[in-house]
Amino acid sequence: MAMRIGWIGCGVMGRSMLQHCMDAGYPAFLYSRTASKCKPLVDKGATLCASPAEVAKNADAIFTIVGYPKDVEEVILGQNGVLTGLKSSNKSGTVIVDMTTSRPDLAQRIGKEAESMGCHFLDAPVSGGDIGAREGRLAIMVGGTSDAFEKVKEILKCMGNPEKGGKVELLGPVGSGQHTKMTNQILIATGMIGVVEALLYAQKAGLDIQKTLNIVSSGAAGSWSLSNYAPRMLKRDFEPGFYVEHFVKDMEIALDEARKANLSLPGLALAHQLYVALKAQGDEKKGTQALLLALERLNGINNN
Amino acid sequence: MAMRIGWIGCGVMGRSMLQHCMDAGYPAFLYSRTASKCKPLVDKGATLCASPAEVAKNADAIFTIVGYPKDVEEVILGQNGVLTGLKSSNKSGTVIVDMTTSRPDLAQRIGKEAESMGCHFLDAPVSGGDIGAREGRLAIMVGGTSDAFEKVKEILKCMGNPEKGGKVELLGPVGSGQHTKMTNQILIATGMIGVVEALLYAQKAGLDIQKTLNIVSSGAAGSWSLSNYAPRMLKRDFEPGFYVEHFVKDMEIALDEARKANLSLPGLALAHQLYVALKAQGDEKKGTQALLLALERLNGINNN
Repeated sequence: MAMRIGWIGCGVMGRSMLQHCMDAGYPAFLYSRTASKCKPLVDKGATLCASPAEVAKNADAIFTIVGYPKDVEEVILGQNGVLTGLKSSNKSGTVIVDMTTSRPDLAQRIGKEAESMGCHFLDAPVSGGDIGAREGRLAIMVGGTSDAFEKVKEILKCMGNPEKGGKVELLGPVGSGQHTKMTNQILIATGMIGVVEALLYAQKAGLDIQKTLNIVSSGAAGSWSLSNYAPRMLKRDFEPGFYVEHFVKDMEIALDEARKANLSLPGLALAHQLYVALKAQGDEKKGTQALLLALERLNGINNN
Repeated sequence: MAMRIGWIGCGVMGRSMLQHCMDAGYPAFLYSRTASKCKPLVDKGATLCASPAEVAKNADAIFTIVGYPKDVEEVILGQNGVLTGLKSSNKSGTVIVDMTTSRPDLAQRIGKEAESMGCHFLDAPVSGGDIGAREGRLAIMVGGTSDAFEKVKEILKCMGNPEKGGKVELLGPVGSGQHTKMTNQILIATGMIGVVEALLYAQKAGLDIQKTLNIVSSGAAGSWSLSNYAPRMLKRDFEPGFYVEHFVKDMEIALDEARKANLSLPGLALAHQLYVALKAQGDEKKGTQALLLALERLNGINNN
C-alpha cells in the first residue's frame, strides 16, 4: 500500500508540490494555518486535518513547508505539533521531512527529538522557485540518514523528478540540506547584485541592452540569474517567483551561521544590506529581481 | 587578394588569435615590445616589423591587443605608432581594431583621430580567456561603424568562430565594445565573490564540497564562473587564465566610467577592493580565481 502522506503548509510552493505527490497516487492528510488555501487539494481528495498533530497521527511520512524557522518550530515542536501527534499515537518509524528553508541548528534539534522517539527527521529545502514546484522539477537538498532518505526518496522524486530536470540528493547528516541551501543562496545573492549593476551600467553607457545581454550571457559572465532575471527586470516585471522577505530571512540564517563559524562574508553582507533596504522601501512582497529598484533608488534613477 | 593583417601585441591571447588568422591564409605583419615572443609566428611566416608604424605601412587592417590603456595609447597614438605610420604612407581606408580591454573614452579619441585621416577604428575587446583564444571561440564585442565592421568581420570570425561557439557582434558606435566588456566584467567580478564565499561557507559547514557543487550548479545558483572556477579553486590551481592585475585594471575602468556617469555600484566597488587586497598580497600574476586566497587570508584560514 502506498505510504500515507502528511502535509503541512499550503503556500505557493507547497500546493504544487503536494499536488504532484497526489497525482502519483499517494493519499494525503493536510493542514494549513489558512484552511481556505487547502480547498483545491481537498476537492481533489486530500483529507483536511485540524492540526499538525492530527496530520501526524494519520501519516507515514510528514512533510512541512512553511514560512520561517519559528513556523517550523511551531508545527513540529509546538503544542499541537507533529511530535505531539506522533507521541500520542505511539507511532515509531515515521519520517518527518522539513522542506522549509530554515536554520541548520533547528534541523539538528528536531532531528534529535525525533530520534529519541524512534522516528526520523530529514531537512530537505528546495531550489527552483514557484515554476520548479509547479513543473515538478525542484532541486531537493536533503540532510539525514540514508535509511530515512530511502523511505521517502520516491515521494521526493514526485516533486524533483529527474526526468523533468529535477534533482533529489542526500548530502550528509541532518542540517546538511539547510547548509547546502545556504551555499546556494550565497551564490544567488551576490550574483543578483552583479546582474543589477551590469544592467544599470549598460543603461548609463547607452548600450543596446538586448544585444549586450545576448553577448555577455553566452560567455564567462553567463549565469542562470542573468538569463532568467535580467529579462524580467527589463520588462519591469517584479512579480514574486521568490519573495524578497523570504530571501532576507535566508541570508540572515546564512549570516548567523557564518558568524557562529567566525567567517567573514563581505559579499553576502552587502547583498543582505541592499535587500534590507529594499524591504525598508516597502517591497518585501516583490520578487527578488526587484533588487533593481533598490539600486535605482540609491542612484536617483526613476524608471517608473 | 587576402587583406594584409597588421598585428601588435604578442601576449598569451594575441599569439593564439593571430595564429588563427594566419591559419586562414591572411599574410601577417607583426610587432611586439618583446620581439622574442614573435618568434613562433615569424617561423610560421609572419613578417617581423620594427615598430607599430612599420606594421601600419604594410597592412590593410591593424589589430592591437596589449596590456593597459597607456599601451594602447602608445602603439596607436604614440611617436612610432600606427597613426604615424598611416600618415607617412598616406594611406586611407585602413581599419584599426583595438582588442585590448581599454577605456571607452580612449577608444572614442582614437576613433576621431582615425576618422580625420580617412581611416576607421573599431574597439573590439574579447571575452573567453586564454582557452577561448586558443580554440578560436572568443566572444568579440565590437564598437564602430557597420562599414568598418564589414571590412574586418571575416578576420574577426577566425578568432571568434561561430562554428566553434565564438561570437562576433557589432554593438554600437565606437566605445560600445569597451562598455559591453565592462558590463561583462561587472558580472564576473561580483559573481566571483559569490563563488568564493559559497565555497568557504560550505567548507566551514563541513559539507561534501563536490556533492554540494553538483546540486547548486544545476539550478538557480548556477553560473559559468561556478562551473569553471570552483573546480580550479578546489584543486588549489591558481594559474592565470586571466591575470588578477588585468582584472583590477578592468574594474578600475568600469568604476571610473561609473563615477563619470554618477553611478554608485557597491558590488563592483567591493569586488575591486578585494582584488586590490589580493594584489597587495603579491598575487597580481595569479588567475582571477585566486580571489579565494584573499578571502581565506581575511578569515585566517590557511589551506596551503
